[in-house]
Amino acid sequence: TESGHPAADVLREALGTGAWRADGDAGGATVPVGDLELLAPVANPSKILCVGLNYLDHADESGVQAPAKPLLFAKFPNALRADGAVVEVPKDISGELDYEGELAVVIGRRASHVGRDEALDHVLGYVAANDLSARDAQFSDGQWLRGKSADGFCPVGPVVVPAEDVADPQALRIVTRLNDQVVQDGSTAEMIFSVAEIISYASHYMTLEPGDLILTGTPPGVGFARKPPLLVQNGDVVTVTVEGIGSVANRVLVV
Amino acid sequence: TESGHPAADVLREALGTGAWRADGDAGGATVPVGDLELLAPVANPSKILCVGLNYLDHADESGVQAPAKPLLFAKFPNALRADGAVVEVPKDISGELDYEGELAVVIGRRASHVGRDEALDHVLGYVAANDLSARDAQFSDGQWLRGKSADGFCPVGPVVVPAEDVADPQALRIVTRLNDQVVQDGSTAEMIFSVAEIISYASHYMTLEPGDLILTGTPPGVGFARKPPLLVQNGDVVTVTVEGIGSVANRVLVV
Repeated sequence: TESGHPAADVLREALGTGAWRADGDAGGATVPVGDLELLAPVANPSKILCVGLNYLDHADESGVQAPAKPLLFAKFPNALRADGAVVEVPKDISGELDYEGELAVVIGRRASHVGRDEALDHVLGYVAANDLSARDAQFSDGQWLRGKSADGFCPVGPVVVPAEDVADPQALRIVTRLNDQVVQDGSTAEMIFSVAEIISYASHYMTLEPGDLILTGTPPGVGFARKPPLLVQNGDVVTVTVEGIGSVANRVLVV
Repeated sequence: TESGHPAADVLREALGTGAWRADGDAGGATVPVGDLELLAPVANPSKILCVGLNYLDHADESGVQAPAKPLLFAKFPNALRADGAVVEVPKDISGELDYEGELAVVIGRRASHVGRDEALDHVLGYVAANDLSARDAQFSDGQWLRGKSADGFCPVGPVVVPAEDVADPQALRIVTRLNDQVVQDGSTAEMIFSVAEIISYASHYMTLEPGDLILTGTPPGVGFARKPPLLVQNGDVVTVTVEGIGSVANRVLVV
């Protein structure tokens, strides 16, 4: 299927050849993937828009009321990391590190004041994301930016899967693992505001540009809300798997 | 003087020729400035970092305690507008529009974990900025992004003045006018956290990239804190003048 997004068609072709896979059969010379530095599949987005408290049970576990409309906050591109990249946490962010597995949306076509029914036409594809958070900075500032947008706090991967290959973005299982332990197991069916509603809503305030990334919120199970808390420690590996999209896995180093 | 910033040297040369001025003497063909669309002097910054409540009297008038460290929040590039551009406020942001005149910093050299003493070496130059804010969205969301980063909410101008031409960024008068009325008249001497402190602090969490913009906070006199409130109305012109930098003036249309 041609999508009408030139970038999506290039993406489909690349994915089809398997050239991005370590075991791909695209022919030509092969290089052990360990010798390569993988880059995040989204480069220099003009914005990384995030939605807070978009799953009822996550709002509950956070001890706050579910928002009446999408609660928007920001990350910047310095936070992006690829699947497999080591996240070196800036040493001034203290130990209260937490994971948040999420479905992320890549915008493919400029969106301004779009309705819900046309919102998904502006999506290039989907990617798994980890909305890494330093809870002390997030909550002590009040404004979430510093605790959410430190260097490396937005791993995304493994690749952008074209929207045409995702039958229903509201029916995807999201599983987050801290090392081998499953810590989040939810579904995008449980979102309070759907992908289409988020895009439509945001586009009434901020023009969305091709390449922009939207993180759509996390299901319950985050570390700070557990009793006792289960926070990310030096050397831990966090893996976020979104059904039909793939996994983004990152070792976290606190240096 | 050569600054060591190639971009700054180009900037100095262009400013020197007066080519950017309507009355410039750079020679060549001239075009009435009214026929041109002026662009913001900063294009596609990877981040627009803002500092909240960075003047004691503004924190006081806002009814909150002055922060113990710089309070960081975000705008995105969709908010940028040039001097003279009309700001068309998205119609879903309601009427509680407010001005905030600020000194803004343009980063010229990557900054990560820099100390205060070396922080200003990373500055390309300075520009005047208006941190336009929709108070209802800002305060009802709690997170300030939507109320601060709507399309057009970050006019900057008139040009980036090279750091070498600004003797002391902590001794600049900032005057904001709403139409002809002076509504803010402060000085960067009154900042709680200096430009150097802000850059050093932020760089310990987020790598600052060339072209990044930092809005350093607003002096007292904002509209929502006045009794009675003095908010920006359809058709008003807001002009922010920073001593030694120049003015950014924008008509605000609520459509």
